[in-house]
Amino acid sequence: MNDLAGRDLLSSLDFTPEEVRGLLAFAHDIKHGRVRPALAGKVATLLFFNPSVRTRVSCESALARFGGTGITLAAGKDTWNFECREGVVMDGGTQEHVRELAPVLSRMGHFVGIRKSELITVGLDPAASGASYAELAKDEFLQRFTEFAEVPVINLESNRWHPLQGLADAMTIQEKLAEPRGKKYVLTWTWHPKALPVATPHSQLMAAADLGMRVTLLHPDGFGLEPEVVRRARARAEAQGGSLEESDDIAAAMKGAHVVCAKEWGALALYGRPEEERRQKEALRQTWIVDADKLRQTDDAFFLHCLPVRRNVVVADAVLNSQRSVVVQQAENRLWTAAAVFGALAAR
Amino acid sequence: MNDLAGRDLLSSLDFTPEEVRGLLAFAHDIKHGRVRPALAGKVATLLFFNPSVRTRVSCESALARFGGTGITLAAGKDTWNFECREGVVMDGGTQEHVRELAPVLSRMGHFVGIRKSELITVGLDPAASGASYAELAKDEFLQRFTEFAEVPVINLESNRWHPLQGLADAMTIQEKLAEPRGKKYVLTWTWHPKALPVATPHSQLMAAADLGMRVTLLHPDGFGLEPEVVRRARARAEAQGGSLEESDDIAAAMKGAHVVCAKEWGALALYGRPEEERRQKEALRQTWIVDADKLRQTDDAFFLHCLPVRRNVVVADAVLNSQRSVVVQQAENRLWTAAAVFGALAAR
Amino acid sequence: MNDLAGRDLLSSLDFTPEEVRGLLAFAHDIKHGRVRPALAGKVATLLFFNPSVRTRVSCESALARFGGTGITLAAGKDTWNFECREGVVMDGGTQEHVRELAPVLSRMGHFVGIRKSELITVGLDPAASGASYAELAKDEFLQRFTEFAEVPVINLESNRWHPLQGLADAMTIQEKLAEPRGKKYVLTWTWHPKALPVATPHSQLMAAADLGMRVTLLHPDGFGLEPEVVRRARARAEAQGGSLEESDDIAAAMKGAHVVCAKEWGALALYGRPEEERRQKEALRQTWIVDADKLRQTDDAFFLHCLPVRRNVVVADAVLNSQRSVVVQQAENRLWTAAAVFGALAAR
Repeated sequence: MNDLAGRDLLSSLDFTPEEVRGLLAFAHDIKHGRVRPALAGKVATLLFFNPSVRTRVSCESALARFGGTGITLAAGKDTWNFECREGVVMDGGTQEHVRELAPVLSRMGHFVGIRKSELITVGLDPAASGASYAELAKDEFLQRFTEFAEVPVINLESNRWHPLQGLADAMTIQEKLAEPRGKKYVLTWTWHPKALPVATPHSQLMAAADLGMRVTLLHPDGFGLEPEVVRRARARAEAQGGSLEESDDIAAAMKGAHVVCAKEWGALALYGRPEEERRQKEALRQTWIVDADKLRQTDDAFFLHCLPVRRNVVVADAVLNSQRSVVVQQAENRLWTAAAVFGALAAR
Repeated sequence: MNDLAGRDLLSSLDFTPEEVRGLLAFAHDIKHGRVRPALAGKVATLLFFNPSVRTRVSCESALARFGGTGITLAAGKDTWNFECREGVVMDGGTQEHVRELAPVLSRMGHFVGIRKSELITVGLDPAASGASYAELAKDEFLQRFTEFAEVPVINLESNRWHPLQGLADAMTIQEKLAEPRGKKYVLTWTWHPKALPVATPHSQLMAAADLGMRVTLLHPDGFGLEPEVVRRARARAEAQGGSLEESDDIAAAMKGAHVVCAKEWGALALYGRPEEERRQKEALRQTWIVDADKLRQTDDAFFLHCLPVRRNVVVADAVLNSQRSVVVQQAENRLWTAAAVFGALAAR
Repeated sequence: MNDLAGRDLLSSLDFTPEEVRGLLAFAHDIKHGRVRPALAGKVATLLFFNPSVRTRVSCESALARFGGTGITLAAGKDTWNFECREGVVMDGGTQEHVRELAPVLSRMGHFVGIRKSELITVGLDPAASGASYAELAKDEFLQRFTEFAEVPVINLESNRWHPLQGLADAMTIQEKLAEPRGKKYVLTWTWHPKALPVATPHSQLMAAADLGMRVTLLHPDGFGLEPEVVRRARARAEAQGGSLEESDDIAAAMKGAHVVCAKEWGALALYGRPEEERRQKEALRQTWIVDADKLRQTDDAFFLHCLPVRRNVVVADAVLNSQRSVVVQQAENRLWTAAAVFGALAAR
């Protein structure tokens, strides 16, 4: 595979499509017991600012199976509160600066993983942050941390990217379609009571693009992803022999689809204003759910979702319980792609 | 030992008395360094909905000593909130269905452990749940999770059972009595400020029954265990050459006892009504504590308690500090029986 | 090295200066890959009553790198609430006595680590405890736990001592100065919005004393450390060919210093009265910060701080960002000294 030792994985643009393919081949080999990533005695500090099931367990399990260890810290609960601005007089609510935190965690272990999304919440409460998407998309803490880190930093989901999810999706698509190039992939927006982050759909879009698929990004007006991300995805898709188009026509999108990936996300222009967002999308609820009828319009498509998923809100039971749903396999592939990432980024 | 590979351990009725004996022999062998359970590279995801010291540390330590790893998740804090009803439209406070959670955690590791007791609380606050015991005893989440799981599920304490505690008690009784068959075992109710769960005494009762002991279940009127559990325990005791009787006569019960196990639990008919329960048992406080005087009436009995224990409320200092108390050994055996369970259930 | 197997490490006075030196030599050997501490299969239960980054990650990582495992418990959240008084009727807010907790955790693993400081808080809230320093300095829980423990107990920071921090400081000073004996070490008090604990400066003072340095304890009037600790430090310093003097003259202290260690701590006489403490020290803020001007007065001193540090409150950016700051190396040495401590105390 490509030589990724010592690299960071902060976004789904950090690796070339060829590097992604190499990483996926490594993940397939690990899954099928053909190779073991060299993780014996390796330690990853995993810093979570948000709840997590799949990300945390897949990373810790990937390390543990091959002799390594993940140390999970719940930021702000197990730890101090962190500062990342320059020159600030720290006499307020923050106790530790990333200029210390990043090199210190780098000396403690061999990797640092960071999940920090201002938009992930538990329950129905609106996100605490009132910042604009443009502000949040800078992923300031992650970027600043990486600037001062001395070991590979792995993004476990930020405001803009969730690269490990993208890799697991790509691996699953490869397993189901064998040769995804030129096959039709639909990433469809779905209604959800909250304004969820765009990190996951950004990375999912890039995964399909890097596989050279014919990508349709399907969403109602006002619910597009970040234009720059879409532009980059289109360029990468085309370079791989694929394409990318945006559409709000559900029937046209479903027709001929080989993969339907559902994802709920918030309107970028309304981030930080959850009540207004909720009102604007109320009428979309009935239409923008993936149900059996929609799946029937496809070319016997496989169904993907990153999980957790609200049943009968985002997708109907009939779809999730059917043989076309590969969401469990997709989640399992979080484990093998995480093992591949840790194995590939480990310094030698 | 018996072949338990791939089995679940949800209740103290899941294994036959012969299988229990095989498991205990395995635990003794592990404790004395005669065998090592094959846990290298094995991962258990341990999902705790309630606080834990012994259960969590014994499971994690058992895995760690033999090359495995326990990944502990604090449900609802580290994780999302889970749904287990069928067909529900998930637009409320739950984000993830057991239909996804169970197979996904199954793909991440080799075992899943679950502690979910609606009746465990910290401090003196009454339990949040207002459900009846009959409702709670269904252990719906645990059962539903297991239905969709693909790896062995281990009950780390539910509303109805705490099978790992029962095994540790049985191991301790074997160590102290050599041949427990026909020896007298008293499980005595004790007063406690709260209405504690019955899972532990259920499994403790079954442990003594499976060892073929002469079991006395001692409690004041209105504070019996679940009748169906008592019936099953009596049948298993008799099949092993023992017996089971219920009594509210403390003096008669203590006379000739070889083991006294104290446990505090709530009145089944008053679950969800802690204030009423508290009033009804107020007069029992002075009588229903295990003190040195009661122990003197026994045949030099060993004293058991699952811990944690409220000193001088459930049992007097003079008993706990005496040589007859084996509560620390009993807690230690949580470690060795956990190692035996993980080792025996591991798929080969 | 000296034979420390089976010993406890509760205070910076528990080991002789010769034993400390032996431990540091072991830590240097581990750091440079010349030896591996024998930690395979060893388990440490780490009980944290307070937040932690460096202590927790350094201990867990030290164990993990050499085949062991740290099991971290957040006391009072993951666990029950603990009692350590004798003879108490436990019908209040505590559920478990150290008389059970300590031997039980001793049976579960090979070490127990405890962080319990009544004075550590997160954010700007004053400490909850209103107890006097004299009361807190007894470290009652830690002492009582150790009394009933059966394996080595390691103090991960109490009200009075933080011995692991002292060891890391000593190791760093050795690395930077080669022969610290007779070199000038200044431990300087700094202003901070809160009344922080004295455990760390106590152990830092003892570290410099054990290295035989010429120690200056620099602080404004009313902000001295515990007199008994200072007396012991002076005795140990003198026995090693060094000295210890107290001063409130910043310029005189800085002159000729080879090491400046900054630390913020509260006025002992005002513990439990944070508002009064804050008022008394308000005027000290401008003077008692370590800035580039102060460092220039030294003999090109290295700068130490235990971290986390409030930038531009305790120490200026210009100092922390300079080549003379060794705070990251000092934090890294937490890892190697922890590995040495676990390795040395492990029973054989």
